[in-house]
Amino acid sequence: MKILVINTGSSSIKYQLFDMAEETVLATGMAERIGSDTGTLSHTTVAEDGTRNTTEISEKQMDHARGLACIAALLTDETHGVIKDALDIAAVGHRVVHGGETFKDPLIIDQSVTDEIEKNTPLAPLHNPANLTGIRVAGSVFLNVPQVAVFDTAFHQTLPKQAYMYALPHDLYDTHRIRRYGFHGTSHAYVAGKAADFLNIPLEQLNLITLHLGNGASATAIQNGKSVDTSMGLTPLEGLVMGTRSGDVDPAIPFFLSRHLDMSLDEIDAIFNRQSGLKGLCGENDMRSVLEKAATGDDHARLALDVYTYRIKKYIGAYTAVLGRVDALVFTGGIGENASDVREYCCRGLSGLGIAVDPVRNKDTAALPRRINPGNTSVAVLVVPTDEELEIARQTQKTVLK
Amino acid sequence: MKILVINTGSSSIKYQLFDMAEETVLATGMAERIGSDTGTLSHTTVAEDGTRNTTEISEKQMDHARGLACIAALLTDETHGVIKDALDIAAVGHRVVHGGETFKDPLIIDQSVTDEIEKNTPLAPLHNPANLTGIRVAGSVFLNVPQVAVFDTAFHQTLPKQAYMYALPHDLYDTHRIRRYGFHGTSHAYVAGKAADFLNIPLEQLNLITLHLGNGASATAIQNGKSVDTSMGLTPLEGLVMGTRSGDVDPAIPFFLSRHLDMSLDEIDAIFNRQSGLKGLCGENDMRSVLEKAATGDDHARLALDVYTYRIKKYIGAYTAVLGRVDALVFTGGIGENASDVREYCCRGLSGLGIAVDPVRNKDTAALPRRINPGNTSVAVLVVPTDEELEIARQTQKTVLK
Repeated sequence: MKILVINTGSSSIKYQLFDMAEETVLATGMAERIGSDTGTLSHTTVAEDGTRNTTEISEKQMDHARGLACIAALLTDETHGVIKDALDIAAVGHRVVHGGETFKDPLIIDQSVTDEIEKNTPLAPLHNPANLTGIRVAGSVFLNVPQVAVFDTAFHQTLPKQAYMYALPHDLYDTHRIRRYGFHGTSHAYVAGKAADFLNIPLEQLNLITLHLGNGASATAIQNGKSVDTSMGLTPLEGLVMGTRSGDVDPAIPFFLSRHLDMSLDEIDAIFNRQSGLKGLCGENDMRSVLEKAATGDDHARLALDVYTYRIKKYIGAYTAVLGRVDALVFTGGIGENASDVREYCCRGLSGLGIAVDPVRNKDTAALPRRINPGNTSVAVLVVPTDEELEIARQTQKTVLK
Repeated sequence: MKILVINTGSSSIKYQLFDMAEETVLATGMAERIGSDTGTLSHTTVAEDGTRNTTEISEKQMDHARGLACIAALLTDETHGVIKDALDIAAVGHRVVHGGETFKDPLIIDQSVTDEIEKNTPLAPLHNPANLTGIRVAGSVFLNVPQVAVFDTAFHQTLPKQAYMYALPHDLYDTHRIRRYGFHGTSHAYVAGKAADFLNIPLEQLNLITLHLGNGASATAIQNGKSVDTSMGLTPLEGLVMGTRSGDVDPAIPFFLSRHLDMSLDEIDAIFNRQSGLKGLCGENDMRSVLEKAATGDDHARLALDVYTYRIKKYIGAYTAVLGRVDALVFTGGIGENASDVREYCCRGLSGLGIAVDPVRNKDTAALPRRINPGNTSVAVLVVPTDEELEIARQTQKTVLK
């Protein structure tokens, strides 16, 4: 079964075509700069022996529909193609950011589903409209192919009320559904499953803390395989320090900035979401640059690294309290998978919680699930490469086969 | 040595007169409704045998100066007084809410000190001006008596940078001193000292988590006797759930409320500070009422209790990670000292961290420092009645004797 996974942003379409027999990637690529003067499309085919072949095209005034038509054409192209006919695609799986409280599972998209995604737009004003565009154009390009929505929030719909309710007027939840939703659900779910495989223990018996550390970053407490708390909230701003996002701050800071610095809410929003995090503290939003600068003795970079890892450490402690027993701590995402120093700093001083990192194992760079704790600690510390696209493909397959 | 402790609010003056020889209270009282039509003053003397005698007076158009003059008159009154002359008072200790980064210790107030308190007013717009009024009128009523400022923030000035810096643009700290300050410092310091006495271990060797749970609420991580992290931040809004304050929320919620519900920042401020917390979740801001309603099966009251104690549990976990080793968990404040159910719920499921509550010991209501953990757990769980006024008196004495 061939499954196409699509992640549509406001000016981009990322895609991967999977052959689910062996869960192999046949093709992958990205249309970018959609809506600007010239759109570009980079398309890579992956041969059976792993050989990758990339084609780049650019086109004036490319919109989402045209971009996806180009993708479909390339997938079925005689030279660059990997399938004969678009109908060889059994289903299209869409990443949808905000499923609100409606969607606890992936499902086949019909009018009522798109209506509901539309209704959740206030909760994800940048993402849901783009995701809906992707769904609409994919419906017209891949006629009669089932479209499946896989929600970033769905995995966290198992949160108990005490974890998802803010201590705000109850009416804000009743009327406007203001609550913690959490994001990165596909990634947390994927690495939790992989960790269970690696440890050879059924996921339903495992308590995990998963740390997705990429451009965005979130921590999740998983009890018996189910998400019971997560650091992102109503929006992806809350929680850990990120590339450009502040994560947790005193909620009164906007009042201070407005009154004393005369800033508008839009300006404050831009500061919290785009000028804060690592970038705000030291000018660099890429952890590799932060680590390089910190190594040369740059005080601000060192501070950014300290604040970043200290915040993670606090969440590890908080979720240890929530879970009572932790079987494994799982690092994933670009930073979680690659930044061994970050992993080390996050776990420093946690031996009282049974958590430690073995310095030699931690330096291993294999792109495979691997263990990095020493032999004598009680909590398995794992590095598990995430693969959100594969997880979406799996959930899409499961949904159409139901 | 007699020391008068004063806590001035915008419409009130609370006071206690101590004899520091035995740390006994000679008189205590409160002027209220200052600035409204009729101000009231309730003055209680405490005889050597503990007999309390209360006088109430009311006066039209009482301002702070007149209120404090009445207090001075009552203290030296032939019938209601406890001292012969105002000059018997060796020092006046003032609670000052926000000392910013300037004040790490209490100190004798002179012009430069009041100027600096004034400068910190943007950080505590409601409290510091009232505290300054108290200082000004006390200076004129108790002429030539040294005035000492004891800051709510001072105990937390030992926080390391990684704990006090938000992941916001560094310039907001450099230019506007936006950072975590923490509050309730006098209470956290007092109960930490009491816990050390109770455990008979020098405070400098103790790692503690102190939970001040009153109308306001905050948690502090204390390492070797020093505050290293605390849940309140730039303002007293951040952190735990409180009577009417939300504590931690997604910092993007103000943007959502403004855009989708067209609320002004002042309205959002009022919601977060005065209509949230326990009150927001269940309509009651007093924990006694919440517990009563929860016991009758009221769902919202039960939820409020769950969210309140769950948040505390997460902070206990986070600070356990910060401290590495925890010697004692200390409950204080009106709720912490009296609500045994709250203490029990906060500690449920924490045996993995060495924390548990013995159900029988937990029901003891003695107003003395006491231990409530069972014999077989590693972390001492203590209830320690706080006494911020006595702590201010002690610090005031220490300061004038330097």
